[in-house]
Amino acid sequence: MKRIKVFAPASIANLGCGFDIMGMALDEVGDVLEMTLDEDGDGISIDNETDVPLPSDIEENVITPVLRKFFALTSKSGRVEVRVLKKIFPGSGIGSSAASSAAAAFGINELFGAPLGEEDVVVCAMEGENLASGGYHADNAAPAVMGGITLIRGYDPLDVIKLPVPGNLYCPVIHPHLTVSTKQARSILPKEIPMHTAVTQWGNVGGLVAGLCTGNIELVGRSMRDAVAEPFRKQFIPGFDELRAKLLGAGALAMNISGSGPSVFALAGRGDIAQRVGAIMERHFAQQGILSETYVVKVSNKGARLIA
Amino acid sequence: MKRIKVFAPASIANLGCGFDIMGMALDEVGDVLEMTLDEDGDGISIDNETDVPLPSDIEENVITPVLRKFFALTSKSGRVEVRVLKKIFPGSGIGSSAASSAAAAFGINELFGAPLGEEDVVVCAMEGENLASGGYHADNAAPAVMGGITLIRGYDPLDVIKLPVPGNLYCPVIHPHLTVSTKQARSILPKEIPMHTAVTQWGNVGGLVAGLCTGNIELVGRSMRDAVAEPFRKQFIPGFDELRAKLLGAGALAMNISGSGPSVFALAGRGDIAQRVGAIMERHFAQQGILSETYVVKVSNKGARLIA
Repeated sequence: MKRIKVFAPASIANLGCGFDIMGMALDEVGDVLEMTLDEDGDGISIDNETDVPLPSDIEENVITPVLRKFFALTSKSGRVEVRVLKKIFPGSGIGSSAASSAAAAFGINELFGAPLGEEDVVVCAMEGENLASGGYHADNAAPAVMGGITLIRGYDPLDVIKLPVPGNLYCPVIHPHLTVSTKQARSILPKEIPMHTAVTQWGNVGGLVAGLCTGNIELVGRSMRDAVAEPFRKQFIPGFDELRAKLLGAGALAMNISGSGPSVFALAGRGDIAQRVGAIMERHFAQQGILSETYVVKVSNKGARLIA
Repeated sequence: MKRIKVFAPASIANLGCGFDIMGMALDEVGDVLEMTLDEDGDGISIDNETDVPLPSDIEENVITPVLRKFFALTSKSGRVEVRVLKKIFPGSGIGSSAASSAAAAFGINELFGAPLGEEDVVVCAMEGENLASGGYHADNAAPAVMGGITLIRGYDPLDVIKLPVPGNLYCPVIHPHLTVSTKQARSILPKEIPMHTAVTQWGNVGGLVAGLCTGNIELVGRSMRDAVAEPFRKQFIPGFDELRAKLLGAGALAMNISGSGPSVFALAGRGDIAQRVGAIMERHFAQQGILSETYVVKVSNKGARLIA
């Protein structure tokens, strides 16, 4: 019998221009799992010890396909008992399913002495994303496993690039209590986009990656613009353009939808600006009678990890 | 009266995935202009002292709008006499018009003591590109002025990012004598592209920029793929896929169409591989009875410059 406690962070997917390919791990906010392995046993149990409602059928919990993928890739076996101790609220748009999936993938790999490399741990975590949203996405799963800011260069085969993260990058993020499902947010997007729009987008992706690699946070800020998904998705977030104008006016480098929403995040190069930006976000939704949670954290280079 | 001699390099636009936003300056190959300024005079004269046919009407020469843009931006005046001493063959797809435009823009700025910054010199050079192809493109003009590998993050306002160039990057490039006009090569492209294709493309742009910034030339090579223009344009280049297979087999990092073609370029991390790759390119077209010129040069960090 082996028992560990694992943390995996919340994450922000897309980062404006990096639709479906980029993601960023947050500090402090995330999921905590306690995992127990009995190598002589068999089967999976999952107990939810949080207030967050999770499906009682383990076939509907993202953790299950993650563990099964690990067993399939490694030909290992055993009984795994998972206690969910802390859980980001599902549907928040800050990588709730990816945090559980990443924690489970990292944890099971640790329990067996880490037979899989980091990229294969991401592959396991992607099984949870597939259950949650019907697609093998790694834009949240990769940063939740690896930490920092990740770029999915390609999926066939999976090619995850961990990008340098400038030292002082703060991320105020707000989860307004609006209901936007990932499915709804995806179905509103067009199947084809104008060439001109696509060129604009990959110009910004290039600028964002260059800004991160060279530590030029102004370049990061002005590149973090989404010409593809935001024009369709911002309608779900009341006063989106007005909020951005306020945040940029307060010194934020950029503001975008987190993943498919409804969470919204900003970036700031200083902690005091990040606090101010977080307060403006909160007021923006409060004035419209919309409840929310706000986190003001640093971008974290740490991904899934063991905790005491 | 002031007289200077100016060189501006050939360049490779697009670099596979970076359609319309990326470009790279080559060493040695380029245009040479001798430029004379009489600040008390007025007007423009252009003499072609090369064997390359150029329009005799100065209104049809790319140099003219470049010089006029300089005068418009700076409110300077004078008579400029240009002698074209060396000229890349137009239609080669290695930035012939951009080399002349960049040399003229850099030269006129030098003649007046460099009142414009580098980005405004690019803006002047873009007037030549507009005359040549009916659009304000900077993907060749920016590297021809600034050298190295450039990324056009955006056009409104122009935002040119000069990317780091790994030390040993060799570029074998071949100009097969096939007639493909930029207009023809552009008109064959679709106005809209599938979202999935666009995501693939910007994943590769991110990988390419990350590879350049971190000096990871394998990442550069596997990111330099074009899902957008190449599928339509490769039909103009006989045996394109077969040629690529041969070059990758010989150790090239990547092979792509240069700009809108018909030139084709490869990248290599070693000089001897680059020579071998260049020889294979030459043989490929020779075997089909297609004449060509081959250059095997380094990627150059130097752009437009004064020469003795």
